[in-house]
Amino acid sequence: MQKVKEFSLEEILKVHENGKLNVAVNTPIDSYDVLTQVYTPGVAKVCKAVEADPQLAKKYTIAGNTVAIVTDGTAVLGLGDIGALAGLPVMEGKAALFREFGGVNAFPILLDTKDTDKIVETILNIAPTFGGINLEDISAPRCFEIERRLKEKLKIPVFHDDQHGTAVVTLAGLINALKVVKKKIEDVKIVINGAGAAGVAVAKLLMVSGVRQIILCDREGAIYEGRAGLNPEKAIMAARTNRDRLRGDVNKVLAGQDVFIGVSAKDVVTADAVKSMNKNAIVFAMANPDPEIRPELITDIAAVIATGRSDYPNQINNVLCFPGMFKGAFAARATDITQEMCLAAARAIASCVPSPTKDIIIPSVFDKNVAKNVAQAVAEAWTKYGRQK
Amino acid sequence: MQKVKEFSLEEILKVHENGKLNVAVNTPIDSYDVLTQVYTPGVAKVCKAVEADPQLAKKYTIAGNTVAIVTDGTAVLGLGDIGALAGLPVMEGKAALFREFGGVNAFPILLDTKDTDKIVETILNIAPTFGGINLEDISAPRCFEIERRLKEKLKIPVFHDDQHGTAVVTLAGLINALKVVKKKIEDVKIVINGAGAAGVAVAKLLMVSGVRQIILCDREGAIYEGRAGLNPEKAIMAARTNRDRLRGDVNKVLAGQDVFIGVSAKDVVTADAVKSMNKNAIVFAMANPDPEIRPELITDIAAVIATGRSDYPNQINNVLCFPGMFKGAFAARATDITQEMCLAAARAIASCVPSPTKDIIIPSVFDKNVAKNVAQAVAEAWTKYGRQK
Repeated sequence: MQKVKEFSLEEILKVHENGKLNVAVNTPIDSYDVLTQVYTPGVAKVCKAVEADPQLAKKYTIAGNTVAIVTDGTAVLGLGDIGALAGLPVMEGKAALFREFGGVNAFPILLDTKDTDKIVETILNIAPTFGGINLEDISAPRCFEIERRLKEKLKIPVFHDDQHGTAVVTLAGLINALKVVKKKIEDVKIVINGAGAAGVAVAKLLMVSGVRQIILCDREGAIYEGRAGLNPEKAIMAARTNRDRLRGDVNKVLAGQDVFIGVSAKDVVTADAVKSMNKNAIVFAMANPDPEIRPELITDIAAVIATGRSDYPNQINNVLCFPGMFKGAFAARATDITQEMCLAAARAIASCVPSPTKDIIIPSVFDKNVAKNVAQAVAEAWTKYGRQK
Repeated sequence: MQKVKEFSLEEILKVHENGKLNVAVNTPIDSYDVLTQVYTPGVAKVCKAVEADPQLAKKYTIAGNTVAIVTDGTAVLGLGDIGALAGLPVMEGKAALFREFGGVNAFPILLDTKDTDKIVETILNIAPTFGGINLEDISAPRCFEIERRLKEKLKIPVFHDDQHGTAVVTLAGLINALKVVKKKIEDVKIVINGAGAAGVAVAKLLMVSGVRQIILCDREGAIYEGRAGLNPEKAIMAARTNRDRLRGDVNKVLAGQDVFIGVSAKDVVTADAVKSMNKNAIVFAMANPDPEIRPELITDIAAVIATGRSDYPNQINNVLCFPGMFKGAFAARATDITQEMCLAAARAIASCVPSPTKDIIIPSVFDKNVAKNVAQAVAEAWTKYGRQK
């Protein structure tokens, strides 16, 4: 838990002057000897070698270790559709985290279109520079189709962080929270509030990890099979979750549940609803910047509480996942990011906290072991299971 | 003139391992205080500021100082259509030169399409990240249309280096070569061999600079008004050059000329043809890696000789132009790159050699003043003349 200093716009702008990234060289060009190797005429030999064997590009160019952070700016932080350019400070920050925590190159690509077909085509058209694609802050449900189509066509890892990054770190926290309350993942009943990109991905990864009982809620309450007006993604989830077809809003369906996972909005959960949960309830109120319920309201009710904030204990932060995820995928020359890799990443993050307590279920974002361990686990999962198609 | 060491493929590959670039951070993320400013929640304040005033992106993001180096790999060095991926080592080298000589961010964008419409649309779709577009190694005549359409639609500088970079540095060398032979630019008769991207751009910039008599030659010889089968670009040039409608191959039309400028192919010019030129002939044999005529064959015939190579005197190298060109365009917040800016850049480069001799008409690529002087001249030209439309 960190005391978070609030900085003024002026202070923050100062840190952003001229942007937060720079494209740097690995070898300073300070002599003709270097110049003739990194540029003409020497570079022609590398070009010809790559032309003869394109796989060499993975080793001798940035195409083997560089992530495109792609956004259309339609779902930036909690700010919504502010446009790609206004989202650039976030994308630069994300690229900075890739560098600092994973030692991975990442570069922002802002899309000047919100059209699904054009987004897919544009990314395909510029893919050769990159070793991986990190989709970022693209609103649901378009993000699902864009990710699916890119995964089909590209032979490089495609990862939508808002979905899978959130799912991985949530699962990591849950693994340790369950240790604290001594419950088994197969036995617990879980309510997820929010059925957009993050909520659906969390539900899917939890099922892969062994969770059997999930109820997914959206603004209209519990999603159940046959509910009118479900979009295709929710309809698929309705067939796989909430087998008792419970109805009603999130606060109603929380009764008798073990875990609440919120990827929704400020203050939508009541203390009474948390009281109605099973003993040793786990509450992940991850809406940003303001959680679904303020932790101080349920300190004596819930056994473990996590949020998306650094000023409460147990911050569920995607930065624990994405740098190591791509670092590992690159190391293994993975051509995809699979659910096995996500599962391995979650377990690796969880294992960075050897003795979880109610206030420490998740490692610090500054724990240098996290990205390293995630990378190793992810690479092993790719090597062991490969592509799941 | 530099003795150029020839490096083996093995040696050169070693310099290329993991690529030649890395995306680095301007502020290390080593504390929560930094993290909360460069990323959530602090970064949201910058996003909102940019949303309210998009011009702020020029100051507080990389969009103000970053060049996309865009290629489809159809005309890479002298290697031809080797594909974008095989061209990546060149694009990385170019980005490295932008960084090292101009202090400018540049990032390669490889296109997985050769279709003109798709190229234009793709570049427009990813333009918001960038402060400028450097088109590179895209074959003629598509490069003309792509550049024209991008310039029409984008409010950031678009520069096709193979055209305008070559033109700028050629003109810089010519300005000083003419000083050496004491001829005036208005009076000289010039033959340009090669009517692709570079040749046409050289001709146009020479005209802007005051040259009155140019003959442009392609593989079929001198281009003259009415010659059958000219593409639109050549037809336009035919109407503005070779007013005497001379015919015949380059060696024939060189008789009685003052300047030869080659952007064509190895060994296409004979020593006899150079002998037939006017006294104090200037020969720029810039085909790469092998010039139109080997300098040692005409040492006693021509007064000034330049090539594209670093192992002869007077290397005409685009790196003298592009880093300073974009540095200056960014500094002036230019929304275009104009012929006035190109002219100013050429004069700035020429002025870095205060007392030209036959062996020193052009500064060294390692002369640190060049990019600085070019940037200043280019910024002044933009401020003075603005956009020429």
